[in-house]
Order: sequence, then C-alpha cells, then structure tokens
Amino acid sequence: MKAMVVEKFRAPLVRKDLPEPQLRNPNDVIVKVVACGVCHTDLHAAHGDWPVKPKLPLIPGHEGVGVIEKVGKLVTHLKTGDRVGVPWLHSADGLCPSCLAGWETLCPNQQMTGYSVDGSYAEKVVADARYVGRIPEGLDFAEVSPHFCAGVTTYKAVKLGGAAPDKTVLISGIGGLGHMALQYAKVAGARTIAVDVEEHALALAKNLGADEVLSARSQDVGKAAQKLGGADVVVATAVSTGSFRSSFDALKPGGKLVIVGLPPEEMPVPVFDLVLKGISIIGSIVGTRKDLDETLDLAARGLVKCNVKVEPMDAVNDIFDRMEAGKIDGRVVMQIA
Amino acid sequence: MKAMVVEKFRAPLVRKDLPEPQLRNPNDVIVKVVACGVCHTDLHAAHGDWPVKPKLPLIPGHEGVGVIEKVGKLVTHLKTGDRVGVPWLHSADGLCPSCLAGWETLCPNQQMTGYSVDGSYAEKVVADARYVGRIPEGLDFAEVSPHFCAGVTTYKAVKLGGAAPDKTVLISGIGGLGHMALQYAKVAGARTIAVDVEEHALALAKNLGADEVLSARSQDVGKAAQKLGGADVVVATAVSTGSFRSSFDALKPGGKLVIVGLPPEEMPVPVFDLVLKGISIIGSIVGTRKDLDETLDLAARGLVKCNVKVEPMDAVNDIFDRMEAGKIDGRVVMQIA
Amino acid sequence: MKAMVVEKFRAPLVRKDLPEPQLRNPNDVIVKVVACGVCHTDLHAAHGDWPVKPKLPLIPGHEGVGVIEKVGKLVTHLKTGDRVGVPWLHSADGLCPSCLAGWETLCPNQQMTGYSVDGSYAEKVVADARYVGRIPEGLDFAEVSPHFCAGVTTYKAVKLGGAAPDKTVLISGIGGLGHMALQYAKVAGARTIAVDVEEHALALAKNLGADEVLSARSQDVGKAAQKLGGADVVVATAVSTGSFRSSFDALKPGGKLVIVGLPPEEMPVPVFDLVLKGISIIGSIVGTRKDLDETLDLAARGLVKCNVKVEPMDAVNDIFDRMEAGKIDGRVVMQIA
Amino acid sequence: MKAMVVEKFRAPLVRKDLPEPQLRNPNDVIVKVVACGVCHTDLHAAHGDWPVKPKLPLIPGHEGVGVIEKVGKLVTHLKTGDRVGVPWLHSADGLCPSCLAGWETLCPNQQMTGYSVDGSYAEKVVADARYVGRIPEGLDFAEVSPHFCAGVTTYKAVKLGGAAPDKTVLISGIGGLGHMALQYAKVAGARTIAVDVEEHALALAKNLGADEVLSARSQDVGKAAQKLGGADVVVATAVSTGSFRSSFDALKPGGKLVIVGLPPEEMPVPVFDLVLKGISIIGSIVGTRKDLDETLDLAARGLVKCNVKVEPMDAVNDIFDRMEAGKIDGRVVMQIA
Repeated sequence: MKAMVVEKFRAPLVRKDLPEPQLRNPNDVIVKVVACGVCHTDLHAAHGDWPVKPKLPLIPGHEGVGVIEKVGKLVTHLKTGDRVGVPWLHSADGLCPSCLAGWETLCPNQQMTGYSVDGSYAEKVVADARYVGRIPEGLDFAEVSPHFCAGVTTYKAVKLGGAAPDKTVLISGIGGLGHMALQYAKVAGARTIAVDVEEHALALAKNLGADEVLSARSQDVGKAAQKLGGADVVVATAVSTGSFRSSFDALKPGGKLVIVGLPPEEMPVPVFDLVLKGISIIGSIVGTRKDLDETLDLAARGLVKCNVKVEPMDAVNDIFDRMEAGKIDGRVVMQIA
Repeated sequence: MKAMVVEKFRAPLVRKDLPEPQLRNPNDVIVKVVACGVCHTDLHAAHGDWPVKPKLPLIPGHEGVGVIEKVGKLVTHLKTGDRVGVPWLHSADGLCPSCLAGWETLCPNQQMTGYSVDGSYAEKVVADARYVGRIPEGLDFAEVSPHFCAGVTTYKAVKLGGAAPDKTVLISGIGGLGHMALQYAKVAGARTIAVDVEEHALALAKNLGADEVLSARSQDVGKAAQKLGGADVVVATAVSTGSFRSSFDALKPGGKLVIVGLPPEEMPVPVFDLVLKGISIIGSIVGTRKDLDETLDLAARGLVKCNVKVEPMDAVNDIFDRMEAGKIDGRVVMQIA
Repeated sequence: MKAMVVEKFRAPLVRKDLPEPQLRNPNDVIVKVVACGVCHTDLHAAHGDWPVKPKLPLIPGHEGVGVIEKVGKLVTHLKTGDRVGVPWLHSADGLCPSCLAGWETLCPNQQMTGYSVDGSYAEKVVADARYVGRIPEGLDFAEVSPHFCAGVTTYKAVKLGGAAPDKTVLISGIGGLGHMALQYAKVAGARTIAVDVEEHALALAKNLGADEVLSARSQDVGKAAQKLGGADVVVATAVSTGSFRSSFDALKPGGKLVIVGLPPEEMPVPVFDLVLKGISIIGSIVGTRKDLDETLDLAARGLVKCNVKVEPMDAVNDIFDRMEAGKIDGRVVMQIA
Repeated sequence: MKAMVVEKFRAPLVRKDLPEPQLRNPNDVIVKVVACGVCHTDLHAAHGDWPVKPKLPLIPGHEGVGVIEKVGKLVTHLKTGDRVGVPWLHSADGLCPSCLAGWETLCPNQQMTGYSVDGSYAEKVVADARYVGRIPEGLDFAEVSPHFCAGVTTYKAVKLGGAAPDKTVLISGIGGLGHMALQYAKVAGARTIAVDVEEHALALAKNLGADEVLSARSQDVGKAAQKLGGADVVVATAVSTGSFRSSFDALKPGGKLVIVGLPPEEMPVPVFDLVLKGISIIGSIVGTRKDLDETLDLAARGLVKCNVKVEPMDAVNDIFDRMEAGKIDGRVVMQIA
C-alpha cells in the first residue's frame, strides 16, 4: 500500500510502498482509508518536537476515515463495510482508574494513532475496534474527518468548561480548532466572544454567529472582554504567553480557562489573582469515545461543520510547509481513496 | 476602647484609645471582642504588600470572636449576648451573580474585615450581622478564633478539591493553615500525604494522622508522591515557585492543585503536562458563610482542632516579628477580654 | 387602587378599590403594575386547593411586571422608573442553609407573592427589592410577564435535568409551561421530543423546532420514546398518574425525571425499575434570582418567547373558567396599566 | 466439582457434582472459589421472584472470592494465583453510552453472576477477567466476600447521595447492607442517623458510631429525624411502603433519597412535597469496577468491616430459610475451600 512516512525528524515525508497492516489481535480491524485530515500535531510528530518522541519510521495521521475491510474474531459491534474513523486515542488499557472512570484519554498505557503506532497517511490502517468511531449516515468522508480530532478536542474543552445558555464563552484563536470550538459553544447556548489577530478569522467568526469579536492585534483583549461583562469560560486553542495572559484577564470571578493547545514552553500564572478571583486553569486533551460519538452526532444533526480544503496525499510536504508558515485556515484533508 | 492600629505601612502597630464603633445601618451589630487570631494576611496588610492597599489608619484582625453587645433594627436572627465571630468577608452586595450563586467570597463589592474596614485588634468591632458566624456552644473563644480564617479557608480548599474516601490528598505546608487542611482531608475520608521542610511540622502531621509524610528538604516531592501512587488533590498552603512545581508533579492524571496562598509573584505552569495529564489549577479564597457554618460545626463535633498559643494583645508587634521570621507554629491568638 | 380580590375560596374574584400598598421596611419597593400573567397556581390559590392555604382576602398574581414608583431607604441597586417584575418568591430569610447555598427557593421562611402576601392583580404591588427581577431593555411588558413564572420554572427544570447537546430531553405537556420548556431545551442544544394529547399542541411543538413529537392519545409514549432511543431527561409539566408512568418509561438508563407540576395526589413509583435502571425523580420549584436573571437574559437575546394572549384585568373570572376547562393555550396576560 | 444448584424455582437447592467450567473466550479466567457470601438477591433468584427470570438450572452466588487458576490469552493484568472476587456484574459490552461513561452497571447487555450466568456456590467459577475485583493483601477471604456486593452496593449509594462532612446521612435498615452503609457514611465524615425496628440493630449502629439512632417501632421516624435537623441524604436499604414514606419525610429541603433495595411493589410518592421541597429520589444498583476497587481499598485500610458469620456450603438451604424468616443479622458467608 502507499503511505507517507516520516523516516527522520524534520525531513520531508517520503512516499513508500509498504506491506499492508495485519490484524494484531482479535479486537482489531483493518480500515481502508478514504481521507485523513492534517493536524498540527502531525507536524510536531514529524519534527520530534515533544519530550516523548514518536516511533520511527512513522506513518502519521489521526483523523483517518474509511471503510472496514477486515474484523478480528472478538469484534461483534462492527463488520466489513462499516464506515469508521480512527482517532488519536488508538487504545487504552481499559482497566486503570482513568479508564474505569470514563477518562480513557488519561490512561497511562494508551497508544496514540500516528504517533506511538502507525496512522492514516496510508491506504490502510490497523485499529483497535473498541476505540474507533462510527460515522453516522449522510456525512461525507472528507468533511467528517477533522471531527475525529479538531472536532472532538474542542467539543471536549467546551463541555469541560461548562458552556451553557447562562455562560459567556470566549474562544481564543479562530483557526482549525477555534472555529469548531465556537460552534460547539453556540450549540450549547452560550453567548460567545471570538478572539484572533487576523481580520479574516474574525470575519469567519462573525459568519459562524459569534456574538462579539475582538481583535487581539488592536486592543487589550482582557480589558475589552471585561467591558463586555467578562467570560465565564475561555477556550484557549492557540496558546502563547501573551494570549494566555489576556485569556486569563478576560475571565469573570470563578471563571475557567480551558487549554487545548500544547505549547512546549511554560506560562506564568498570576497566582494572586487566581486565588482572589477563584479562577481555574484546566488542561484538556482530545476527547473520550463518548465525546467522539457526541461530536459525530452533532455533525450528523448538521449543527457543527468544519471548514475543509481537500488535497491529494502527495501534497503532504507542501501542506506541512504552509501549516508551519501559518498560511492554513480551517483544515486541510487529504483524499486518499 | 483600646485597639492596635496600623498608622503607616511597615511601622509597628500603635496602641490607641479610640471611640467605640457605632452601628452604621440597621443590619449591623456591635461585638465585644474576646479574642482574635493573628493571620499572615494581617502582616501583609500592615506592610501594604499587595496591589490593593488597605485603609489607613487600620485596625487589623479578621478572626475576632466575642459577644454581641448591640443589634441593628433589621437584625432578627441574632441578639445581645450571642457568641459570634467576624470573618474576613465583612460584607458583600448580596445581589451580584457570585452572591446569588452562593459565592459571596467572589463578590466584586465585598468589604474585608481588618483591611477595607476596621477589624478585631480592638475591644469592640462593628460587623454586618448577615456575615458573622455563630459560635456553637461548648467551644472556647480562643480556640475557635482561627476557625474563622485558617479553618474556613482550608476547609473550603479541601472541599473544592473534592476530598473523599476514594481520593489521596497531599497537603503542602503543615503550618497554621496546613495542619488544619490535613484534618479536614482526613475527616472527609481521604488518604493523606503531608509535605513540609521542617521535621517538627512532619511530626505534627504524623500525630494528626497523616498516612504519609514527605520532607521537601530531603527529596523530590513530586517523584516521592508518584511512588506513593500520586495525589488526586494537592492543597498548597505555602506557595513558592519550587513547592508549586513539586505540588504539580505530585498529581495523578486528572488531578487538582488547589492554591490558598497569596504569593505576590507569578508561577510558571508547564502547560504541555497540564494538557496531557488533564490537570486543573484552582485558586481558592477564604470560604462562604455556609462553609464557615460547616467549619464551626466540625469544630463543635470535635473533629478538627487548631493548635493555638494565646498571648496578650500588647504582644502584637512581637508576634508579627516572629511570624515574619517563620518562627510561629500553628496559630497565635490574642486574648483581648 | 383597583385590584381583583379572592374573598373566599372557590368564589369569583371581586373587583375592589383598595388603599395603595406601603413600604413595609427599608428593603421594599412599590411597583406600578403594567401587566400580570395568569398562572394555574393562581387558580389553585383562589380555590384553596393545597394543604397550606393562602391568606384571605388575597390579591393573587406572581407574574406582575411594571415600573418602580418608590424605593425604601436601603435600596441602592434600583431606583424610581426601573422596569421590574415581582416573582412567586417574594422574599426569603437570606440566612438559612438553602439561602446560603443559592437555593432560596427552598427557604423555609419564604413569602410567596400572590399567596402568603398580596400579588399583582392590582395597580400597585409592594415587593422586596432584593427579590424582584430587572427587565432588560427592549422587552415588552406583556410578553415578558410569563417569564417571571412559567419561564423561570421551566428554565430551572431544564437546567436541573442537565439539558445539553449530548442529551435527549422529552417535554411532557406542551401548554403554557411546556412550550417554554421545549425552547429552553433547544437553546441548550438538546435533541427534543414533545409529548401532548392535543394535535394543536404538537403542531406548536413542531413549529418551535421539536425534533420529534409524540401524541399521548394515540400511542404508548414510553415505548414510542424508547424506539427513538429514549430520553436522558423528562421535564413533566402536566403530571397525571398516567403521564407520570409513561414519562418514567421513556427514560434511558441513568435518566432523570424532573417534575414541575403540583398535583395533589401521590404517584406510584416502580422502585424495582428505578433501581435497576438508575433513574432519578427530581422535584423542581420555580427558580432562584440567578435563574430568573438568566431567563430574562434569554428572552432579551430573543432565544425564548412565550405565546401570549393579552386581556383586560376585568376578564379574570372568565380567564379562570377557561383555564379550568383546559381551553387556554400558552399564557393569558392581563393588561393592567 | 461440587456446586449448589437451583433446579426449579422455590425448591431447595440441590448439591451436584458438575463438570468444571471452561474458559469461554480469551478474556476469561477460572477462579477456584474459597468463600461466597449469601445475599437476599440469591434468594430472589432461587424463587424466580423478579420479572426477568434467571437461567435454570442456576448456580447462584455473586460474592465469590478465591484464587485464579487459569487465565485466557488476552488477560495480562491478572495471573494464576492472584486473589480476586467475582461480583454481580459479570460483564458488560464495554461500548454502550453507559459503559463509556463509567456506568457499566447500567449496560443493557450486561451479564449477572449467579443470575444470567452461573455463580460461586461452587468450587470453581468462570469470570470475565475485566470485571473481577482484585483483593488487596491482608484481607481474609470470608471477611472480604460481602464487600463484593453488600459493600460496593452501599458504598455506591452513599457516594451517590453525596455523603460528606457537611451532610447528615440517615441509614434506613441496619442489616447486612445498612450496617455497611452506616460505616461508609461515617468514613466520608457525615453525621449519621441509624433507623431500624430492632433494638439489637440499633445497638449495633451505636457500636459502629452512629451519631443518632431512631427506632422505627416506637416513633414516627420522619418527625423524629426532622427534630434532629433532618437528613440531607437517606440511604434506604430495606424498602417497604411505610419505611419509604418515613424516609421521604426525614429529608431536608433539597434532600436525596437513595434506594438500593429491590421491592417488587410500587411506592406512592407525594409529588406535591417532592416539588415544593426540591427532593430527589434516586435508584442505585450495585457499583462499578471503580466503586468496587474503592470499596476494597477502604476494607484494606481497615475503615469498613462486615459482620460475617461463616458456615459450610451444605448449609445453604438452611441459610435461605433463616434469611426468609428475617433471622439473619449481618452477612452469612459460606466457606467453600
């Protein structure tokens, strides 16, 4: 099968013809990949940016969607021909306290698709049937692909923040993640404030129904948000030291700052204000299978869409270049079959 | 009446003979003060350490306990002779979203006893009857005094952290605040880990029933706590950059770091780990009237005690000197009547 | 002033010319009433249906809206000319555990407008300023009136049930309460199922965007709802023994049945199923001041509207007759000024 | 192997010599049973009392504890020789919304040990390795056995009720379940009220540290509990129509009535009071694997013990007779190996 492979960090991905993946155990399925979104995390993986390194050589990709081709002997809830996606959380041990509490995303024994095991920048991928997401009828493969990471990640953050009709939610960064976070906040009935440095991002936010938009280029976002009454929840998708602080300053007393970005650097927290205002800073990583099912249900109900640009798999190195240069709006999805 | 007064920042308090305080409105009461604990916050107030300065001249003191001498016309739930304490939260507006949600401690219009209004380093104090705490029968004035700040503050933090029989709670710093936090965690059924740099503090923790004690002087507390299985909750009473980080590192996936200290400096947060491990960092300030009533109930049930040393009010400058030098264990309470 | 008065139970209300109400204490305001909705509870009050009887003679009405004419000396957050509504919860003690927890609706010392104290079927009403709701700009008096009871009551029930984008909420009874509950569930992002016996009520539900409608006349609602996947939450507005059981049977495992109706009779609960399916049955009464502010905010944002028919105050006995005969859809509001 | 078998409903169990159970799939383990508690549910199973009937012939028993003898190929977290217990929840599908939310006890595809599959009234039992509980070191087999049902069931109910240091928990029925519920409530710091009709049960409650005991024989429990301030939570272990009502009447405003018993009959709920007082009635069935681990941890920490009487397996019919006659206090455990 054809696959795009990271052979060494910070080098271009190489197109290879590899043997097809096999069932490793009776809970596995083989998925014929139709499309796969390109996530910033893939770029970090290909660069070896983070403390824990991915496997090498690596097939990246954790937004792969397609059709089941083969099922292991213990798989009864899925069958050949079913449409599924293979998310970041490849598998978990199912038995640790986190797993037993419905927080498999925090399992210390998890495997990560396109990181610790091969992913979906390939014509076939092997997955643990218990951790794939079933794609509801009527959804297009390329369009649903980013819901498996960008979607579920921001859905979870918005949910964790407690978005609701009585809450104001500020979304910091209206890119691939943020434009979905904004929609999830709106679906939950929240009043929304969208923040970005780019005018076109703010225009997108307006189109998506943001109640207020604030340009982080032209004003102090913390103060501007306070003039609007402040935010109960901030979902911070693009975390820099500056945006972190203005997100913090935008919060009402008792507010929650939910972070989904993964910056390598530390952020200085004003503890005095944190205590006096009763603020919480909360880290949130992807979402559980339940979150994923809920995300896909919202997509199927037509309530949340991802802005998608479809390109061929061969374009991956070019896509990575543009992503690194900050030139991508929304999400690029590679058509694979 | 006699009072100890801050006339200018960083100068010794001055003993003055002042006119007695009067009822300012029909919700007020006048309390004859019997005892008042000395809190680190009083030292910060007397030094003008924090961004928002206290009134000057100032009578400090927010752990004052005594007997009601006079009641305003709208006060029906209290009468002359009732035993009460006057806590940090002097009053709140009762109408803002925080107040309406049972979070009056976050009210933007609050007054703070011994800070924005005069406190209990005096023979009499005026209080808003709706915000005083009623002292249950059988409790000694001097012994109950610190429950009005050190007690309720740590009780709230432990409660906010979610201490319960299935949780491990690490208390960082076993001083005036921490030795009470430890007891609250135990009362809630949690497994407890006590951390301090001082051997005598760790010995106290052992006496109070800590399941484990860790010396922050002789080991990496984060690693040592992880060897014990990690903490679901850390209550950080004495926050320095170093202890903040080791508290963070001690957490299990999904863990909560609750901060009650008020350091002027910022703390660097490792955002990557915060997100990957799903950690929350939560600021917690004193406690509400409900928290205070619960705190006093636990004292009345004999489940939580404060280590108290009683001294005369004239000793206040000497007490401040010892506090600044870190020479005080537990809580000093001044006998006033 | 003119007022419609209950002089004895089950007799027609009498139009009287009464002295204007006076400020009783410095927290009071006098409100010039512009409009007042007619609630089923008023009918129960006028009939003396419930165990605890209202005062007699009684001016009913707890959806009165109007303009402040006079303010007591301690009132600083409201002034003459402000637009407010006077809800069912006339006042509470502000000091009991329920009040301190933000649950003043459960206060044992509460007064109820139009029940234990006079209400707004009159040209003037006296209210406790701390418990009135401020009407946002741009809202019409008559249209906003029912939000003070029908609105806040169903909003609270929907919130208590946990309506959210991942939940299915079934509304049992699409009348004055139910058609608002349906809108609140939709605002919170829930999938909705509307149940009623009347075709026109189901048509209204469809117009309001219900995902599914079920006629309780032509089918077993429990079974029909289970075919649709079941309900996470049922909000039961019209509670009869039959509808109670079918609401119960409509629930998913772990589901919640929230009851807002006040039937005098007891309902048989199938405890075996309750335990096996992990069901909760939850009573919910009106809403707190915070809930009321949130309700009014949703009205101001144009997200929830009440179907209102405006009639003169003199029509009250006729309105009562039609209400008793079940001939009223939505809400009748009496124009008073 | 020897086993006690239900061959037909309401007939005595028959001692049989049966072939040993085999691994059915690679997630299974075979457990050599050392001891097994006798639960009321076993009696209901043997009588075919409930709407859904158990398999026939049936080996009852869902408190079996013992040693693993054989492990399936996919089992990596357990090995031969490990000490485990096989609880009521034999297995669940692991994929339904309830399972994914950490509520596998509500899984519609669950199997129940000693009910839909054979249990531990036998020398060997086959179990799904993913659903057994690991017995901590130092715990005696017979003593720990009831923690696998009576323990975890009441632990879950107490936890669901929200027992905490600021809550008063009333335990209705101080038998095999109730005397454990009482201990869990105390461990969580709650003030406790114990209710029973039998003097010896109340004496046991006193010994276990109940703050108050109330005889349901000599007084109106609802009123008596209200005199003590009322209960935030009632855990109802023995549910009859009368005890249900007095439990309900014992609640404070906003209180929760958690039911763990499984009476076949319906209970009349006073809906008017339910709504006015904001009461919740909550069904609770056994506990999840996480709850079970927590229960066993509390046993290992020596905080909760079960009163156990050990008898031989041959005595089972006699034990059933005494249980039916209400002559058993605490828990009878059969020694099997």
